[in-house]
Amino acid sequence: MNLHPDRCFSPEPARRGVARTLYAAVKDLPLVCPHGHVDPALFSNPDYRFGSPAELLLIPDHYVFRMLYSQGISLEAQGVPRRDGGPTESDHRKIWQVFCEHFYLFAGTPSGQWLTQELVEVFGLTEKPSPTNAQRLYDSIAARLETPEFRPRALFEQFKIEVLCTTDAASDPLTHHQAIRSSGWSGKILPTFRPDAVVNLDALGWRESITALEQASGVSVTTYAAFLEALRNRRAFFKSLGATATDHAAVTADTTPLSDSEASTLFDRALAGRSEPGDAARFTAHMLYTLAGMSADDGLTMQLHVGSHRNHNKTVFERFGADKGADIPVAGEFTRNLLPLLNAFGTDPRLSLILFTLDETLYSRELAPLAGHYPVLRLGPPWWFFDSRLGMRRFLEGVVETAGVWNLAGFNDDTRAFCSIPARHDVWRRVVADWLAGLVVEHVIDEADAAAMATALCYDLAKTAYRL
Amino acid sequence: MNLHPDRCFSPEPARRGVARTLYAAVKDLPLVCPHGHVDPALFSNPDYRFGSPAELLLIPDHYVFRMLYSQGISLEAQGVPRRDGGPTESDHRKIWQVFCEHFYLFAGTPSGQWLTQELVEVFGLTEKPSPTNAQRLYDSIAARLETPEFRPRALFEQFKIEVLCTTDAASDPLTHHQAIRSSGWSGKILPTFRPDAVVNLDALGWRESITALEQASGVSVTTYAAFLEALRNRRAFFKSLGATATDHAAVTADTTPLSDSEASTLFDRALAGRSEPGDAARFTAHMLYTLAGMSADDGLTMQLHVGSHRNHNKTVFERFGADKGADIPVAGEFTRNLLPLLNAFGTDPRLSLILFTLDETLYSRELAPLAGHYPVLRLGPPWWFFDSRLGMRRFLEGVVETAGVWNLAGFNDDTRAFCSIPARHDVWRRVVADWLAGLVVEHVIDEADAAAMATALCYDLAKTAYRL
Amino acid sequence: MNLHPDRCFSPEPARRGVARTLYAAVKDLPLVCPHGHVDPALFSNPDYRFGSPAELLLIPDHYVFRMLYSQGISLEAQGVPRRDGGPTESDHRKIWQVFCEHFYLFAGTPSGQWLTQELVEVFGLTEKPSPTNAQRLYDSIAARLETPEFRPRALFEQFKIEVLCTTDAASDPLTHHQAIRSSGWSGKILPTFRPDAVVNLDALGWRESITALEQASGVSVTTYAAFLEALRNRRAFFKSLGATATDHAAVTADTTPLSDSEASTLFDRALAGRSEPGDAARFTAHMLYTLAGMSADDGLTMQLHVGSHRNHNKTVFERFGADKGADIPVAGEFTRNLLPLLNAFGTDPRLSLILFTLDETLYSRELAPLAGHYPVLRLGPPWWFFDSRLGMRRFLEGVVETAGVWNLAGFNDDTRAFCSIPARHDVWRRVVADWLAGLVVEHVIDEADAAAMATALCYDLAKTAYRL
Repeated sequence: MNLHPDRCFSPEPARRGVARTLYAAVKDLPLVCPHGHVDPALFSNPDYRFGSPAELLLIPDHYVFRMLYSQGISLEAQGVPRRDGGPTESDHRKIWQVFCEHFYLFAGTPSGQWLTQELVEVFGLTEKPSPTNAQRLYDSIAARLETPEFRPRALFEQFKIEVLCTTDAASDPLTHHQAIRSSGWSGKILPTFRPDAVVNLDALGWRESITALEQASGVSVTTYAAFLEALRNRRAFFKSLGATATDHAAVTADTTPLSDSEASTLFDRALAGRSEPGDAARFTAHMLYTLAGMSADDGLTMQLHVGSHRNHNKTVFERFGADKGADIPVAGEFTRNLLPLLNAFGTDPRLSLILFTLDETLYSRELAPLAGHYPVLRLGPPWWFFDSRLGMRRFLEGVVETAGVWNLAGFNDDTRAFCSIPARHDVWRRVVADWLAGLVVEHVIDEADAAAMATALCYDLAKTAYRL
Repeated sequence: MNLHPDRCFSPEPARRGVARTLYAAVKDLPLVCPHGHVDPALFSNPDYRFGSPAELLLIPDHYVFRMLYSQGISLEAQGVPRRDGGPTESDHRKIWQVFCEHFYLFAGTPSGQWLTQELVEVFGLTEKPSPTNAQRLYDSIAARLETPEFRPRALFEQFKIEVLCTTDAASDPLTHHQAIRSSGWSGKILPTFRPDAVVNLDALGWRESITALEQASGVSVTTYAAFLEALRNRRAFFKSLGATATDHAAVTADTTPLSDSEASTLFDRALAGRSEPGDAARFTAHMLYTLAGMSADDGLTMQLHVGSHRNHNKTVFERFGADKGADIPVAGEFTRNLLPLLNAFGTDPRLSLILFTLDETLYSRELAPLAGHYPVLRLGPPWWFFDSRLGMRRFLEGVVETAGVWNLAGFNDDTRAFCSIPARHDVWRRVVADWLAGLVVEHVIDEADAAAMATALCYDLAKTAYRL
Repeated sequence: MNLHPDRCFSPEPARRGVARTLYAAVKDLPLVCPHGHVDPALFSNPDYRFGSPAELLLIPDHYVFRMLYSQGISLEAQGVPRRDGGPTESDHRKIWQVFCEHFYLFAGTPSGQWLTQELVEVFGLTEKPSPTNAQRLYDSIAARLETPEFRPRALFEQFKIEVLCTTDAASDPLTHHQAIRSSGWSGKILPTFRPDAVVNLDALGWRESITALEQASGVSVTTYAAFLEALRNRRAFFKSLGATATDHAAVTADTTPLSDSEASTLFDRALAGRSEPGDAARFTAHMLYTLAGMSADDGLTMQLHVGSHRNHNKTVFERFGADKGADIPVAGEFTRNLLPLLNAFGTDPRLSLILFTLDETLYSRELAPLAGHYPVLRLGPPWWFFDSRLGMRRFLEGVVETAGVWNLAGFNDDTRAFCSIPARHDVWRRVVADWLAGLVVEHVIDEADAAAMATALCYDLAKTAYRL
C-alpha cells in the first residue's frame, strides 16, 4: 500500500506532465478549512488525546460504518453507541478486526482513498488492512496515538492548517473557542453560526433548543420579534469570536418570505406546540430569506446546504440517532426557489452566499447560470457523496464553462474526521491540477491561466468567499 | 468488418494494457443470465429451429426496427406483425435488404455493436451489411441456420451459459421449463415470476389475466385475500421449478401500502370493472410493498424495473401492440418512494431487492446512497437504452464511489435476442475491465483490487444477488 | 495568444491522429446557419459599418457582460443601454479597458474560446487582452473595422456562409430581407417565423404585438379564428421570402390542445385584458399543438426551444430589459408533454420538428428515445450554456447511442454576434471530429463510418432537418 505520486492524474503523458507541474505549485499551500465539523474541544485542551484507533477512525465516521452496514454488519457490532445506552461492541480490537476484514469494500470509494492516505501519511503504515494484519496495524496506530506528535494541536501545525472553521449551534457558548483564544496558541479555530435547531420548527428538541437560545442570548424568546433579536445577538457574539460565516441546511431551497404577521403566527403556533402541517417548511423558507438579510447587514457569509432527506432509516434513527449514514439526497431546484432571496439581496455588495447541492443535475442547469449572473453567489465545492475524485470532475465539468472559476468558493473538507483533512484537500488539489491540465493539453487555456486557476481553486477563493 | 481485440478499451497504452489483463481474466467466465426475455420454447424442443435471418435478427427486435422507423421506414415494411393480421411485408429477403441499406444508422449505437459482433462471431461473416451484399449475407446466415450447430441448445452450450432465467407471467404453466427439466438436458433454464399482468389493474386484459391466474393456481380469485393466496401459490410453483427471483415493472417506485380493507376495496372495484382514477397506481404501490414482504417470506429475490412510459405512440400500439420501440423513459424518484418498503423490509436479512432505473440522474443522487446504506439493496446494471458502452461507464462512474462494487448486482442481458447474449456480456466485461483499468492507472486501486472487482462484476455478484 | 491547430482534440496520439484527419475533411465545408439572431440590417446596406470595438464585441453580448456583472461590475459601467435612457458609460475605450482587465474570468469558458478565436482569426491580434494592452488592442480593432474587408457582406463571404437564417417576429415586414433579395447580392439570408410575441398571452406588449400582426397581415384579429388566419397569412409571406422554418420558445414542452371554443375563450379574455392565471400557459400549449399542424400543412420546419426562466433578475429586467444574461434554465419534461403533439403529428411525413433543451438530463432519458422512434423528430444541437466544448461532448455522449447520428439536426450557432460565427462552428467541428475519433480508437466504428458521420453532423443534417 503505497501512495503513488501521480495518483488522480491522467496516465496520458502530456496531461500528466502538466498536472504534475500544476500540482507541485499548490500541494504545499496552507490548508484553508472554512467549513467542517471538527470538535473544537480537540484544541482547547493542549493535552487532548484521541482514543483508540477504532474511536478515532471508525466509530464516529458514518462514511465508514455505513458501508459495512450495507453489507449486513450491524451498527452494534461496529460499536456505534445506542441512544438508550444499550449494549454495543465495546472491544475496539474486535471492531477494528471487522473493519479490516471488510476494507476491500472501500476499493474505488473516496473513503478508501482518504483512509489509505491517512494510514500511510499520518500513521506511517505500509500494509493494506486485511484480516491477517488487523491487530498489528491496531498496535501501530495505538502506539503512535500515545506520542506527543499526535496531540491535535501538533497535528494542526503539521497539517499546515491556516484556519479551521467549526460548525456550532446558535446557543453554543463557544467555550472551547474562547479557551483556545485565551490559551495563547496560535492556531486559528473559528466558529460558524448554524441555527438550524431553532430555525427548523420540526427539528427534534426544537423547544429545548429555543430555551438554550434564550439562555445563551439573554433574550426571552416569547415572540417572533424576540426570536430575531436573539439570533442577531448570537450572530454578534459569534462574530466577536472570529466567525465569518453562517450555515443553513434545508430540504429545499425555497426562500419565499412571509409577512411579519404570518411569520409570527407560525412561530407562536410552534411555541404553543400546535404547529400545523407545512408550517415548518414555510417558516424555514421565510427564515432563509430573513437570514440572508441579516447576512447583508452583518457581513457573515451565508452557506446554504440543500437537499438531504435526513434519517431515512427509521429503525437506525430511533436506535442510534442522527448522522448515521442514512441521509439520502433528493432532487433539488434553485432557479425558482431562490428567486425571492435573489431579487431582494442578489446584487447586494455586502452579501456573500455560497450554495451546496446533492443534486448534480443542478450544476450545469441552475447553479452555474445563477452564479454566472448574480454578484452575491459563489458555488461551494462538491458536497458529501460528491466530495470524491469523480464527483469533483463532474462538478468542474458542469460549472466552469458557464460560471468560470472565480464564481466558485474553492474547497472545504466538511469533515468531523480531523486526521482525514490533509487527504481530502490533497484529492481536490490533485483533481483540480489534472482537470486544468486537461484544458491545457486541449489548448483551451494556457499554462499561465491554469496556474492562476489552480491557486484560486486551492487557496484564494475559499478565503475570499468566506472573507477569511 | 472485423472485431478488434481492444474494442471498448482506452487507446492510452498504460490503461489499455491493464484493461487487457483484467479482461483476459474474465472474458471466458461462464455467462450468468439472471434476467432476460428469451423464449423457453427454444430449449424444450431439441430440434427447435430459428426461422429466416429476418425472423431471427430483425422482426422481433424492437431495438432494430425502432431505428429504421425513426427514419421513415414503416413497421409494415419491416415485417412487424399487425394485431389485426393485416398485410405486412412477408418477403424476408426484402426486409433484410431494407435493413442492410440502413445499417449505417446503427453506427455508434449498442445495437450496431451487438449486431456486428453477432454477425462476426456467431455467423462468421466478415462484411459490413450494405445494399450490395445484403442478399449474399442473407444466404450465408440462412445456410448456417440449417446446421445442427445452430439449434438453440447447441448455441447455449457454445455460449457457455451457466444459467439463463426467463421472465414468465404469474399464470404461466411453465410447460417448457418442465419439459426442459424432464428432457435430461443439462442446460439450466429457470423461470422468473412476473405478475405485472395481474398486479397492474389497468393492464390491457387484466380480467383475462386474473382468470388465467385462477386456472393456474386453482384459487378462485374473488377477493383480495384470494388474490394474495393465488400469488403465493404461484410463487411456490415457480420456486419448485427453480425460480430464484421475481420481477416487477412500474412507472414509479411508489411503495405506499394500503390497509387490507383499502386494498380489498380497490381490488373489488377492479373485479367489478369499476376502477376509479388513481386506483391502479395506488394498488401497484401497495402491491410492491406487499410483494417485498412475500419475497422476505419465500426468499425470491425481488427485481424492480421503474420508469418506462409504455406504448407512447398510440397509433403504433393500436396497430402493432406492446414492445414496439415506443416505450419512453420518464423522470424517477426513489428516496421518498421506497421509504415505506425500506422501513418495513430494508434490513430484513431474508430479502434481496434489485433496483433498475431509466433515469440516470438517480445513480449518484439516490440509488448509490440507498444501496450504500440498506442491506437488502443491490443495484441492477444499466438498463435498456443504457445497456451500452457509454451507459455502463456512466453507471459505474455514478455508483461505485458511493456504493462500492459489492452493492451491485453484476450484469444481466435483459434480452429476447438469444444470439446477442454473448455480445452483450462481452461489452460489459470489456467496459468493466477498461473502467477498472482507469482506476488502476490513476492509482486509486491496485491491480489485485481491480481483478477482484472485475470478477465480482462479471460473475460473482449476479449469482449472489439472485441467489443462483 | 495563439490558436493551436489541435485545440479541442484529445492529447492521446492515436485519437488525436484520427481527429486531425476527420477535422481536415470538414473544417472547410461551407457554414450552414439555420438558426440565429444576426440582424438582417447588416446585409441590406452594402456599406453597413460595425461601430466601435465595444459596440461590436461587448455591449450587445450578454454572454460577456453577464460574467463581469457576476463579479460586481455594473451593467451601466459596461455601457448596456438603460430602458429609461438614463446614463451609462459612453466612453467605449473605458468599457473595453474594463473588459480587458477582466478577460481572465473567461478562462475555460466558451466565450473565452470564441473571443480568442475571433480576435486572432478575424482581427489578426496575437496578444491576450490585459490591462496593459487594452488600448492598443482597441486601436487595432478599430482600424480594421474601418476597412472594406470588415463590411458584413465581405465577412459573410470570407466566412464561407452558405445560408444564414435570422429570427423574426410574426409581424416583421422583412424589409431587410426584401432589400437583400432585390439588391442582387448573392448572399442567402432567410427569415424565420417566430410568433412568440403574439402566442404568449403574457408577453410584455402582447396587445401591441397583436396590433402589429394585424397591420402586417391585413387581418383584423378580433377573434381566435382571425388570429389563426393572420398567422397563416404571415407564414405564407415568410415562405415567399425563403423561410423554411419557424421557431417557438416556451417554458415547458406542454402541447395539450384545447377545443376551439376553449381556445377562443382564452384568446378573447386576453384581447379584453382579462386573462386569468394559467391562461397563458394553457394557450401556449395549445398553440404549440396547433402550430405543429400548420407546419405539417405548409412544410415549415418547426423549432421548439424549451426551458428558460426569462428575466430572473427583476432589477436588471426593469432597468435594462430582456436578454441581459439573467435567463436561467429550469428542469424540463418531454415524454408526457409532447404526447398530444406526437400522437397527432409524430408520424406525419410532412412535418420536421427540432427540439432544444436546457436540461441536459433529458438528452439520454427522453430526447434520444423519442428521436430514436418518431419519424418527425430531430434533436437540435446543445443550446446556449451548452454550446461549448464539454456541453457538446455531453450531448453526443447522451444522444448518439440511442438516437444515432441521423436523428440529429447538426449544428447551429444561435448567435447575434456575427463575427463569432466561424469560431462557434469550428468548436463544433473540432469536438465532433474528436468525439468520433474516440469511437474509432475504441473500435466501435471504423474510419469510413466516422467520416460519414462527421460530414453529416457538420453539414448535411442541418440542411435536411431545415429543408435548406
